[in-house]
This record gives sequence, structure tokens and C-alpha cells, in this order.
Amino acid sequence: MGDLDRVMQLLAKLPGLGPRSARRAVLHLMKRREALMMPLADALANAARSIRACSVCGNLDSADPCAICTDDRRDPSVICVVEDVADVWALERAVAFRGRYHVIGGVLSALDGVGPEDLNLDTLVARAREPAVTEVILAMNATVDGQTTAHYVADRLAPAGVKVSRLAHGVPVGGELDYLDDGTLMQALRARHSV
Amino acid sequence: MGDLDRVMQLLAKLPGLGPRSARRAVLHLMKRREALMMPLADALANAARSIRACSVCGNLDSADPCAICTDDRRDPSVICVVEDVADVWALERAVAFRGRYHVIGGVLSALDGVGPEDLNLDTLVARAREPAVTEVILAMNATVDGQTTAHYVADRLAPAGVKVSRLAHGVPVGGELDYLDDGTLMQALRARHSV
Repeated sequence: MGDLDRVMQLLAKLPGLGPRSARRAVLHLMKRREALMMPLADALANAARSIRACSVCGNLDSADPCAICTDDRRDPSVICVVEDVADVWALERAVAFRGRYHVIGGVLSALDGVGPEDLNLDTLVARAREPAVTEVILAMNATVDGQTTAHYVADRLAPAGVKVSRLAHGVPVGGELDYLDDGTLMQALRARHSV
Repeated sequence: MGDLDRVMQLLAKLPGLGPRSARRAVLHLMKRREALMMPLADALANAARSIRACSVCGNLDSADPCAICTDDRRDPSVICVVEDVADVWALERAVAFRGRYHVIGGVLSALDGVGPEDLNLDTLVARAREPAVTEVILAMNATVDGQTTAHYVADRLAPAGVKVSRLAHGVPVGGELDYLDDGTLMQALRARHSV
């Protein structure tokens, strides 16, 4: 049972999987040894070996600089700053942005002991100083920590003389007013525009 | 992105993980490359290579016959028949049973096209005929399919002349009557015993 126990223990460390679902996952894998278990082992080993953080933007890719940083069809004048690689994926899925990204790798948090030196900020300031860059969009999460971090990053970018913008806050598409929190409603009212 | 996408696709096939949680899991893995991702790849490859179904009872183990079948301290006269390896684990965790097991590997299901020939039953009948075996406990799930399967297995075991028993149904320990279904309450009442 040693090998199976080890797989279970490791799977149980993944977010969204506990001991119980890890056991179910292991049995599922054992029943699909050729179709799922071996390919997953290979894919994990390959990804762990080949994928690295892009030295320009911090995105994860098998190439460095990453495919987005080296894509000539993308606008090099706009940089979208996000907390995490998952945010890059979300924006790419939405096909919402055609510029470049910068992943700072977290948010400032006194509670978790994350200071400015723990974030990927120095390279961002350097990139913002490049003549080709005209705008930096701060796309942190609309959480207290995210917005605190956005303020800090905006301050750091001020000397670069680049235009700094942030995402609009308001009613999400498909959102019902009745279910929205007070903060969102207030922001949506404040940022109202004439039609 | 190819290698990461592949890991995501495969993880999303695990029970309990969808595309969204698979993405979160991949980022979690990438952040713990040495501590989690590489060990998981190794453990999966090792388990896929070494773990097989016990030819006696159908349990999963790196040895064949499995550690339970070869454990001399366990009672060889009682066989507990379960649907799945997860049930063996559940009974072992509860330290509820000190005999041997037999994993039939599923339940009869007309809907899913599972017939008697798809289950690990022939070896069970052969084991039940061994002189050392005096009792077979049917420990299928208390579902319609599980109980149908238990009936079928009991019929198949009848010629072997072995004692066949099944688990008691009733109020689970810690269960509140108010929250129990009608079927359980009826079974618990019917199987009441004097104190």
C-alpha cells in the first residue's frame, strides 16, 4: 500500500481535494492506469521540468520570454498588471486584452508577511520606463489587499511618468442588484455615466 | 503552455476536480515544484508500475497475493464481500473486521450494462467452496444496485453450502431520527431487539 498511500497523501495537498476525495481520485486513477495515471505522471514530470516563470513578465511558459511577451501581434505599449498567473489565464480566456502582462505574484499583506520586496515589482518599474510603454493597467482583485497593492504599485510607477489606470468597478454582467453587496452598488452608482 | 494545459486537462478528469479547480491545482503544483509536483509525478509513476489487483481477493497492493490475504493473524474462515477497494479501506480504517476480503469490483446494473460476468464472482464462489471458509459476509452498499447485487451473490453462493450473512441496517451511530430517511427508520424498527 506504500505507493498508493503516497499518491493519496500528495493528492490530498491539492486545493479542493481532501483525504476523502484524494482516495476517490486514487481509485479512479488506478482504474484508468494507461489512459490517465501514466499520462498524468508524465505530464507532471514534463511540466515540472520545462515550465518556468517568464523573466520579463512572470507568466508561466515553457519558453522564456513567454509566448505572450514574444508575440509580435500583441500591443507592446500597454502592460496589464495582475496578481497571479491564473489572472492572465482568465483575461486570455475572455480574449479581453491584447497587450502584454506583468505578474507580480501576490498581494501586499501584513498578515501573511508579504512586503513589496516579495513581489515582482522592480522589473515592472523598469518595464514602465521603456519608451514603448504608454499605459499600465492595474488589474488586481477587488479585495482590500488587492486594492492596497494597486495603490502601492501606482505610487511606485508615478516617477516613470506612464499613464496608470485600473479596472472599472460596478455591476457584473448578468448580476442582479438584489444580490450585490453594498460596496459594489456604491461604486456602480458613483461611476454612473450618461447614456 | 502545452505541458501545463496537458496537466490541467488530465487533472480535470479526476472526480471532484473540474476545469476551474484543476487550474488552481496546477498553479499550486507549480509553486511547489520540488515539494509536491515532482514527488507526485514519481509517486504516480511508481504506483502505476507496482500496484496491481490481488489475484485472490481483488484488493490493490504492490504484492500479489495482497498483504491482507497473506496476513496469518487474520481469520481465514470469514470472507467479507465488498463492491470496491474503497470499501476495504473504509473497513480497515474502522478496524471493524479481522477476516479476509473479496472485492467484486462493482455492482450489477442494467443501466450501466454491468452483468455478472463483469464482476469478480467466479473466484469468490471458488473461495467459498474451500473447507476453511465458514462464512461469507455480504457488505455491499445499502443502495438498490448494491442490494440487488447482494441477492444475486447470495444465490450464487447457495450451492457452496457456506453461511451467508449481510450487514445490519439501522440508525447510524450519532444519527438523529429526525434526519433519517423513511427506509432506514423502517429497517431500524423492524430489526429492533430487546434490551
